[in-house]
Amino acid sequence: MNKASRIFCPALITPKNAVVKQTEQLSRSQKLLTELGLVKSGSNGTYQIMPMAQRSVDKCIDLVQSNMQQAGGQKITLPILTPTGLWKKTGRLDGDISEFYMVRDRSGKQFLMSPTHEEAVTAMLATTSPISYRQLPLRLFQIGPKFRDELKTRFGLMRAKEFLMKDMYSFDVSEETAMETYTLVNAAYDRLFKQLEVPFVKVNAATGIMGGSVSHEYHYVSPVGEDNLLQCSSCGFAGNSEVVKAPASCPSCNSSDLKEVRGVEVAHTFLLGDKYSKPLGATFLNTTGKPQSLVMGCYGIGITRVIAAALEVLSSDHELRWPKLLAPYDVCLIGPKQGSKEQPEAEVIENELLLNVGEICGHQELLHDDRKELTIGKRLLEAKRLGHPLTIVVGAKSARLDSPKLEVHTSKGETYELDFSETLKLVAEHSQHKKSLERGCFQSETEESKSRSVGHQL
Amino acid sequence: MNKASRIFCPALITPKNAVVKQTEQLSRSQKLLTELGLVKSGSNGTYQIMPMAQRSVDKCIDLVQSNMQQAGGQKITLPILTPTGLWKKTGRLDGDISEFYMVRDRSGKQFLMSPTHEEAVTAMLATTSPISYRQLPLRLFQIGPKFRDELKTRFGLMRAKEFLMKDMYSFDVSEETAMETYTLVNAAYDRLFKQLEVPFVKVNAATGIMGGSVSHEYHYVSPVGEDNLLQCSSCGFAGNSEVVKAPASCPSCNSSDLKEVRGVEVAHTFLLGDKYSKPLGATFLNTTGKPQSLVMGCYGIGITRVIAAALEVLSSDHELRWPKLLAPYDVCLIGPKQGSKEQPEAEVIENELLLNVGEICGHQELLHDDRKELTIGKRLLEAKRLGHPLTIVVGAKSARLDSPKLEVHTSKGETYELDFSETLKLVAEHSQHKKSLERGCFQSETEESKSRSVGHQL
Repeated sequence: MNKASRIFCPALITPKNAVVKQTEQLSRSQKLLTELGLVKSGSNGTYQIMPMAQRSVDKCIDLVQSNMQQAGGQKITLPILTPTGLWKKTGRLDGDISEFYMVRDRSGKQFLMSPTHEEAVTAMLATTSPISYRQLPLRLFQIGPKFRDELKTRFGLMRAKEFLMKDMYSFDVSEETAMETYTLVNAAYDRLFKQLEVPFVKVNAATGIMGGSVSHEYHYVSPVGEDNLLQCSSCGFAGNSEVVKAPASCPSCNSSDLKEVRGVEVAHTFLLGDKYSKPLGATFLNTTGKPQSLVMGCYGIGITRVIAAALEVLSSDHELRWPKLLAPYDVCLIGPKQGSKEQPEAEVIENELLLNVGEICGHQELLHDDRKELTIGKRLLEAKRLGHPLTIVVGAKSARLDSPKLEVHTSKGETYELDFSETLKLVAEHSQHKKSLERGCFQSETEESKSRSVGHQL
Repeated sequence: MNKASRIFCPALITPKNAVVKQTEQLSRSQKLLTELGLVKSGSNGTYQIMPMAQRSVDKCIDLVQSNMQQAGGQKITLPILTPTGLWKKTGRLDGDISEFYMVRDRSGKQFLMSPTHEEAVTAMLATTSPISYRQLPLRLFQIGPKFRDELKTRFGLMRAKEFLMKDMYSFDVSEETAMETYTLVNAAYDRLFKQLEVPFVKVNAATGIMGGSVSHEYHYVSPVGEDNLLQCSSCGFAGNSEVVKAPASCPSCNSSDLKEVRGVEVAHTFLLGDKYSKPLGATFLNTTGKPQSLVMGCYGIGITRVIAAALEVLSSDHELRWPKLLAPYDVCLIGPKQGSKEQPEAEVIENELLLNVGEICGHQELLHDDRKELTIGKRLLEAKRLGHPLTIVVGAKSARLDSPKLEVHTSKGETYELDFSETLKLVAEHSQHKKSLERGCFQSETEESKSRSVGHQL
C-alpha cells in the first residue's frame, strides 16, 4: 500500500532570483501534471518523471509490451549511440540534420543519439550469419529513450526532446508476407488503443523521410494536435491532410461529408520494403539457399506521448482523467481528519477498508491519503485533480457504526453514498473492468454504466 | 510458452570483406554470450541485447526494483541529457573529463550524456518548494542507461561505454539519519546479492571523485576483476587495496591471515553529506522552519554488469551458468527427433509435459526446443551451453508408455533419469526454491542438495 504522506510530488515553484522565461507552451493537462508535481520540467524540452507519473509510464510499458509479444514480438535493446556511418549509407543524413543530437567519442568517431533505430537493427542483421527463410517472419522490439532536438518543444511530454518510445522492426521474405505482418501489427495497435479507451483515428499517412510504400498513423483528436486530419462522416475514411490534399469529396465513398480535425500522432506504422536492408546488406537465405534482401516494416508508439495526449483528451481544465489501465492508482482512500469527533469510529472502518479494498484491487493499486492533519475537503480536492478512478472518503457518516456510509467519487464526476459492501462491490467492478480490458474484451461506456447497479448517485 | 525455433539468437559471423580488428578483450562468459547469440557487439564498447539475454536483464530489473521499493525507494526517471552547467557548480568538470560524452543542442547549450545523476536529482530538489523535515527521509531511484567513454572497454557487458544502472539517491535531515538510511539501503543490497546466490565481498571503499565520507563496494571475486581486494580469513574484514594499503596484518583483528583477490565492482554505496546539496542549494525546512542543506547518499548497481560478472563467476569455459533468479528460462524441454521410431509415443509424453511443467513453473519460464529436425544430442549440447537450470530430454526411453523415463540435466552438471511425476517434482522444487529466494529466505547449497530426494543420479 502507498501512503500519500510519503509520496514525492514536488510542487512547482519559481526560484527567488530566477528570471522567468516562458520558453514553452503548456497544454491544460501538462499544466496540471506540472502543478501537481507529477512531471517536472528539466532543461528546455526534457522532463523528469516523478513517482506517481512513473507508475503510469510503467503500466503503459507493460501494456505495450504485452501487445507486442502477442503479435510475436521479441524484446531486445539496441544502444542509444548509433554510428553516423550507418545513416550515411541509407542517405538519412543528406537532408536536414538539425534535429539530430550528434556526439563524438574520444577517438573522434561520430554517433547519433538515436531518434529511431532502422539503421542499427538492419546493420545488426547484416552482420550475423544470414537467417533462413524458415526463421522468418522476425519481429524485434525495444522500449527506450529517443532523442530529437526539436526546434520548438511544446505541450510538455507531448513533444519533448527526450522521450520514451516503443519501436518494433519486422523482417519478412516478401512484400506479400511483409504486408501480412503489417496487418497483424496494425491489429495489435488497434487492440492496444481500444484498451486505452481514448477515441482514436487511424489515418492513411505519408511515408516521408522514413521511406517505404504503406503507412498509417494513429491520432488522438485534440485542439493542441499538430496534424490536420480529414475525416469522412459517412464511411469513416480518414487521412492526414499532408496525404489527402483538401478534396471536395471523400476519396473512398465520394460523400461530401468531410470534416477537418486536429490530431496528435501517437503511433505510426510503415511498410519499408528494402529501403534499409538493401543499402546495409541485410539478407536472408531463400528456399534455393541464395541471399535475398529482407523486406521490412517498422512500428512506433510514443509511450510518454500516448500518456500525455490521452490526458489532454480526457482531462478538464481542473482535473486530470486517466485511461483506466494507466491511472497511477485504482483507488484513493481518504482517512478521517485528525481530532474530528468521528475519528475513533471512522478509523475502525478505515482499517477494514484498507484491508478489503487492497485485497480486491491489489495493495499496490491503493493510495491511502493518510495526511490526517489536512481537512477531508482539501484532500478530496487534490484527489479529484489527480483523477483517481475511485476515491473513497471515510468521513463523518462512516462513523455511524450501525450503518456506516461512505462517499465514493469517480473520475467521471459521479458521487455515490454507499455502505461498506456496496463500496467493495464498486471497487470489484472497477477491477473486473480493468481485467476485461487487459484480456481485450471491450465494453461500451453505455453498457458499463448500465451494469453499475450499486448505491444511489448523489 | 517459448519455442526455440522462433527465438532470435544470431550467431557470430565475420563479414566477408571485413578487416578483423580484435579491439576488445573478451572474458570466457562474454565469449559464450557472443557465440551463442545472446549479446552482440555494436560499435566499439556498446552492446546489443538479444531476446534471450533481454529476459535476464528484465528479471534483474524487476528484482532490483522490488528490493529498492522494499527499502522505501520511489521510482522516477531523470533525463539522460544533463546540462553541463550543473556539473560546473559541483566542480566535477574540473578534473579529467575525457570519459564524458558531451553534446550541444541547436542553441549551443552543452549537455552531458549522464554517467550518473547526483547533480540532476539535487538540482531537481533545489527547484521545487523546499520539502519539510516531516517528508524526510526521501529515497528516489531510477533504472536506465548511463554513458562513460572508457579508454579501454573490456570483457563485453562488464565494462561497456553504454550500460544499464540502477541509481538511488537519498535525502535526510542530518548526518545521523542519513547514516540510518545508508545502513538500511546497504541491508537491501546485502539481501539482493544473497538472492543472486553468487559469493560477494563487501569492502570499505574510497569515496574518490564522488565525495562524501563513508563508502562501500560490492564485488564479485574473479580473475578478470579490475580491483585488488584484501580479505582477512580470520574476521572476514575486506577492503579495497586503494584504501587499505598493503598492511602486514588485518586492520580489524590484527590477524596476519590476509589474502589478495581480484574483484569486479558490481555495486557501490556512498554517504555524500552536503557535497551536492550545498553548491546546488537543495534544502529542506527544519523544525524551526529554516532552510537547511539536505544530507545525501547515493547507491548504484550496475544491472548489466551484475549479470555479466555473475556469469563470469559461475560459468565454465564451455557452459554458461546463471543465478537462478536471472536465468532466461527455468526449464528447457527437448522434444524427440523427427522421424525417429519413438517419435509418436514420445510426443504424447512431450505434450503432457509441456502442459504440466508449464503450469508448475509458469508457461513463460518454459522453453520448448521444438527444432525436431535437429538431433537430440545437438540440441542438448546447446541447452547445456545456454545453462538452463533444468533441461528435460524426451528421448527414446520416454516412449515406453508403461513406464516412460526422462533424462533431466541440471546446470550444475547433474543428470537424472526420472519418471513423469519425479520430473514434475524436480521442476516444482526449482520453482519453490526461486520463490523462497524472492521472499528473501536463503538456504545453503548443501541443504538444498540434501532436500532433493527424487530419482537417481546417473
